[in-house]
Amino acid sequence: MSLLVVGSVALDSLETPFGRREEILGGSACYFSACASYFGPVRVVAVVGEDFPQEHVDFLAARGVDLAGLVRKPGRTFRWKGKYEFDLNTAHTLDTQLNVFADFRPDLPAGYRDSEYVFLGNIDPDLQRAVLDQVRGPRFVACDTMNFWISSKRESLLETLRRVDLLFVNDAEARQLSGEHNIVKAARRILSFGPRAVVVKRGEYGALYFSGSEVFAASAFPLPDVFDPTGAGDSFAGGFMGYLAKSRSEAPPVMRRAIVLGSVLASYAVEQFSLDRLRSLTGDEIRGRYAEARQLAHFDDLEVDVLATDGGGR
Amino acid sequence: MSLLVVGSVALDSLETPFGRREEILGGSACYFSACASYFGPVRVVAVVGEDFPQEHVDFLAARGVDLAGLVRKPGRTFRWKGKYEFDLNTAHTLDTQLNVFADFRPDLPAGYRDSEYVFLGNIDPDLQRAVLDQVRGPRFVACDTMNFWISSKRESLLETLRRVDLLFVNDAEARQLSGEHNIVKAARRILSFGPRAVVVKRGEYGALYFSGSEVFAASAFPLPDVFDPTGAGDSFAGGFMGYLAKSRSEAPPVMRRAIVLGSVLASYAVEQFSLDRLRSLTGDEIRGRYAEARQLAHFDDLEVDVLATDGGGR
Repeated sequence: MSLLVVGSVALDSLETPFGRREEILGGSACYFSACASYFGPVRVVAVVGEDFPQEHVDFLAARGVDLAGLVRKPGRTFRWKGKYEFDLNTAHTLDTQLNVFADFRPDLPAGYRDSEYVFLGNIDPDLQRAVLDQVRGPRFVACDTMNFWISSKRESLLETLRRVDLLFVNDAEARQLSGEHNIVKAARRILSFGPRAVVVKRGEYGALYFSGSEVFAASAFPLPDVFDPTGAGDSFAGGFMGYLAKSRSEAPPVMRRAIVLGSVLASYAVEQFSLDRLRSLTGDEIRGRYAEARQLAHFDDLEVDVLATDGGGR
Repeated sequence: MSLLVVGSVALDSLETPFGRREEILGGSACYFSACASYFGPVRVVAVVGEDFPQEHVDFLAARGVDLAGLVRKPGRTFRWKGKYEFDLNTAHTLDTQLNVFADFRPDLPAGYRDSEYVFLGNIDPDLQRAVLDQVRGPRFVACDTMNFWISSKRESLLETLRRVDLLFVNDAEARQLSGEHNIVKAARRILSFGPRAVVVKRGEYGALYFSGSEVFAASAFPLPDVFDPTGAGDSFAGGFMGYLAKSRSEAPPVMRRAIVLGSVLASYAVEQFSLDRLRSLTGDEIRGRYAEARQLAHFDDLEVDVLATDGGGR
């Protein structure tokens, strides 16, 4: 498979109700590529500073991630500082230091230009298109975005959306982007902007998929212990795109399995801080939770005669 | 089937982003019995005042609801006034006039005492047990409650819970009752209070069912138009208990189908104000949306060889 991701590589400092960590590995490109790597190799386009620990590079390389497009620039690595309250669905940003990420101009190694599957992580929509411009006729392009770009670079974002096959958003972003409160209407409006599919991520509640007349609802795995929701969305996208690139099909049943796998990868990622859970996660565990997700959502057809035609009394 | 419900019959006045209505039919016993009536007759224990319109009585009777236990008392009918913001998940109470409901002492007609299935609607937990005391060895008892009883009559509520098979709660009530923020832990704690099953209703997100090692997640039907969420929980319970009473089984696959049917009935109830949608709803429509719910949630087993054992690079 040939799967490309452009996004951030970061050193995160965070506080959750369960503890705090300083300068741990984070960033959309890391979560995405670590999760997608369970299905095959992933090509990363990103930038780090001189201070980026080699151990993190080694970890990703050991996972089969192609780091030819990971550029090391003079200066400090991108840093994000955030906090989660008991409602782990929402991150509160305390500090953002762009550092080398401020001047990030994605430049694809020649060997990346034939990538068939592309994930545009949550970066400036101008840069998302700059990446697309360097890929020759990709087969399937997905992108992520956030409230900041929706409000500050709406026109550029819409231009990007006209060139992507699928958009990942959360509920709030879907509402902001579409101007519709109802999530079904919001999704339909987003589809009118260009993408032929949209995945609305709803945190602990799961995800909805809309494409044409297809609607699929995946419940999130009910977890007793969520430690760190950072990277859940990118892990979801990594599992989704990794499976899609491996399957080489966009048939509706494939898309549904991709969404469940995205949900499974995200459910593991949040069980520990940073990418720590992904260090020990095995393919068998992914298969196991996928099977549990099947069991979680399964119910049978209704018996034919259980309903009185129009009520018990008639 | 012999299914009994005790609850409120009310005249509701409400405001939603889509309009307002004055003194329309409402109350837990009405939503519950109208929805359960699609599966067979339902026995109602409730009280109304002298001003309660006969047309509402006629509507319920026409749906096959047994109204031998609907008492008409001197005074005015219970009234509730509420408002919904754009987030239709939360009702804001503007005014409550208990009226005849203030002195409600449920007294079961002799013909109700052999009821096998009992739903204790959201009333004072003392009254919930007063109803149970009048039923001879019910087969399956479910109950509802709310934040008010959880905080003001906790000990009485816990006493009721020791006598019920299943509790319906929403997320916030589950957290309040259990003292646990995480919903899996909250559910486990509630099960330790007595019920052998708990359904956590999550509004537009669906419902979770916990019983022993069984966990089932039902996604709510994504609706483009939700007009009036009043009664959604009681409609859910009505579809659930109606099906259960008709099936006469508590096997896990039956419970799962019951939850989906509860979700289907609730999804119809919120499409119009009051019980209006239930006036025209047919058994075929219920069957149709159940089939759509199957389609909404369905995904296949994973292919055997799609995952590299421990990542693409190894």
